[in-house]
Amino acid sequence: MNSDRGTAVMGPVLVIGTGLIGTSIALALRRENVEVYLEDTDPLQVGTAEGLGAGLQFSAGLLPRLVVVAVPPRHAGSVLAQASLRFPEATLTDVTSVKAQVLNDAIAEGADPSRLIGGHPMAGREISGAAGARVDLLDDRLWVLTPAESCSVEHLRQVYQLVSTCGAYAVEMTPDEHDRAVALVSHAPQLLSSILAGQLTDASADYVRIAGQGLRDMTRIADSDSLLWTDILSVNAKQVAAVLSSVVSDLTATLTALQAIAAGDATQCAKVSTTLQAGAAGRSRIPGKHGAAQIEITIVGVMLADKPGELARLFAAAGESNVNLEDVRIEHVLGRPSGLVEISVRPDSAETLSAALRERNFDVRI
Amino acid sequence: MNSDRGTAVMGPVLVIGTGLIGTSIALALRRENVEVYLEDTDPLQVGTAEGLGAGLQFSAGLLPRLVVVAVPPRHAGSVLAQASLRFPEATLTDVTSVKAQVLNDAIAEGADPSRLIGGHPMAGREISGAAGARVDLLDDRLWVLTPAESCSVEHLRQVYQLVSTCGAYAVEMTPDEHDRAVALVSHAPQLLSSILAGQLTDASADYVRIAGQGLRDMTRIADSDSLLWTDILSVNAKQVAAVLSSVVSDLTATLTALQAIAAGDATQCAKVSTTLQAGAAGRSRIPGKHGAAQIEITIVGVMLADKPGELARLFAAAGESNVNLEDVRIEHVLGRPSGLVEISVRPDSAETLSAALRERNFDVRI
Repeated sequence: MNSDRGTAVMGPVLVIGTGLIGTSIALALRRENVEVYLEDTDPLQVGTAEGLGAGLQFSAGLLPRLVVVAVPPRHAGSVLAQASLRFPEATLTDVTSVKAQVLNDAIAEGADPSRLIGGHPMAGREISGAAGARVDLLDDRLWVLTPAESCSVEHLRQVYQLVSTCGAYAVEMTPDEHDRAVALVSHAPQLLSSILAGQLTDASADYVRIAGQGLRDMTRIADSDSLLWTDILSVNAKQVAAVLSSVVSDLTATLTALQAIAAGDATQCAKVSTTLQAGAAGRSRIPGKHGAAQIEITIVGVMLADKPGELARLFAAAGESNVNLEDVRIEHVLGRPSGLVEISVRPDSAETLSAALRERNFDVRI
Repeated sequence: MNSDRGTAVMGPVLVIGTGLIGTSIALALRRENVEVYLEDTDPLQVGTAEGLGAGLQFSAGLLPRLVVVAVPPRHAGSVLAQASLRFPEATLTDVTSVKAQVLNDAIAEGADPSRLIGGHPMAGREISGAAGARVDLLDDRLWVLTPAESCSVEHLRQVYQLVSTCGAYAVEMTPDEHDRAVALVSHAPQLLSSILAGQLTDASADYVRIAGQGLRDMTRIADSDSLLWTDILSVNAKQVAAVLSSVVSDLTATLTALQAIAAGDATQCAKVSTTLQAGAAGRSRIPGKHGAAQIEITIVGVMLADKPGELARLFAAAGESNVNLEDVRIEHVLGRPSGLVEISVRPDSAETLSAALRERNFDVRI
């Protein structure tokens, strides 16, 4: 059912909620010349979105064929229900990151289930608001669709077309499946990151100073918008609690084992080892780059001086080697002006790249 | 007391345990022409280290002035004690990632505390063994020293010289402080990463497929060597248990709040919000690049096609713009052959870089 990109969704489309996601969707639709109306309780956000070329402010009497609700999860259900009443023919979708409660709320408040298809584009940024919108935020992203059981094929087709017009790819799930999935891969990790980072609040600066890349990676998302996340976690509370409950149970078992080890019972080391092995097994289930199977790569490491232009000089040299770079990772060295850059390449290209870099006096190691 | 690099430590140095860290230290010492002897229970590892130019195999009768013990934490104490007996004049240090128990074990088994200085270089790789060693693994790294209270200044000076000869920077802590610090910033995060990743073991592939960068970052270290980590966590069990206990307590409180919210008690949302805010506050305590204060940066995003040479072409173009790149991050897009590259630059360079990239037809967004 997924149509080719370029087959534009039939407009006009009304986007309600011109924040980051709503405005990005509007921009993507405008790129394909779809007519877009914009609406938000905050006139500043609509003004910004309009200024970016995301469409025109909605005014009474206009009749959208498709309504995209892009407001926080707490309000999405009632906004969908109001839209259903305001536009009795229009297809209705939303883009919030929790699905079951939003759809239940919408139907409970009177939304027409035959026109209702939930959605959740798997895209975002660490900043919010219309000003952060990007025309290509949705490009090549997965977009989960959770149609109501009684929705009509005609309306479902309309939302598939919205997804492909925005350059994204649709995947169908039930609302419950979606909510369990995001609780596992997004919501519970967010809370764990925040709780781990929270342990640093009262720690000695000397302790925090020796933190390495592992802690940095694990606490990166602890920077996210706490208001939005409180809303997301609260609306998906049941599923998040189920995942957290399993995490707490595993953590408690490990804690008990560590306390026994500290008290001299070395037999409990096997329990710690099993936990670590289960982690490696779970990690290996995350798809590789681009969702493809993990590909074989070799890492070429370069120790870089932190002076102007060094990173650029490195990549210029890498570019001239004509080797395809699969990935790049920079590990900061604390307290000193330099860094380790790890360039991932196919194994048969590693030697070519290393030689090219050494020739230009880079400090290379494989 | 930290001497300038280039003032080589006085050899000969005996490295016991020619794995990743031991061999890297040996290579760094050889770079400064220090005489190095190598010893390991595994003749293959010694052979590999020797082949890399890390020094010569130790033979009876040789008399090191400094012994560096680089064996797993479980054995480090007794190896230090044996070294103390074998070489009654030599300075004794180790490089294991747990300090109090190793030093206690060493002294309990007869090591001379006046010559004993514990150490822990904050460096590592996700691979192990002599073959993974790098001459510059320690360059510009922090290296925590935990001298025994009764150690002599002369022996302490010798270990400071070892650190600077390897290109690293010494920081002193007590063994207990060190162990509390690494439990907080390294050991507990390792377990949390493993336990989070372990939740994926039985999850539907459809669920795992929608995982984003957050989950990837949080589970990266779950790939680490489970044998070595079982050893580290077991030897530092008491301090790790203290951190985990606090994490479990915070998680349990959050879980209880989520369960109340799921049951309809919206007042508990405030608890979730507080947890998220504490996480952001904790995260902000991690020093910025190079341990400096966070600097102001602007991110220039580029959506890249995943065809050979695109990343190289991007950096070649960035190089020609003469802008200093502060950082680079690549976000993989699942299921599709393309990726978002985020280049961090100083705010006043963002326009120059964007213009240079757009000129070469890159899909740029600020």
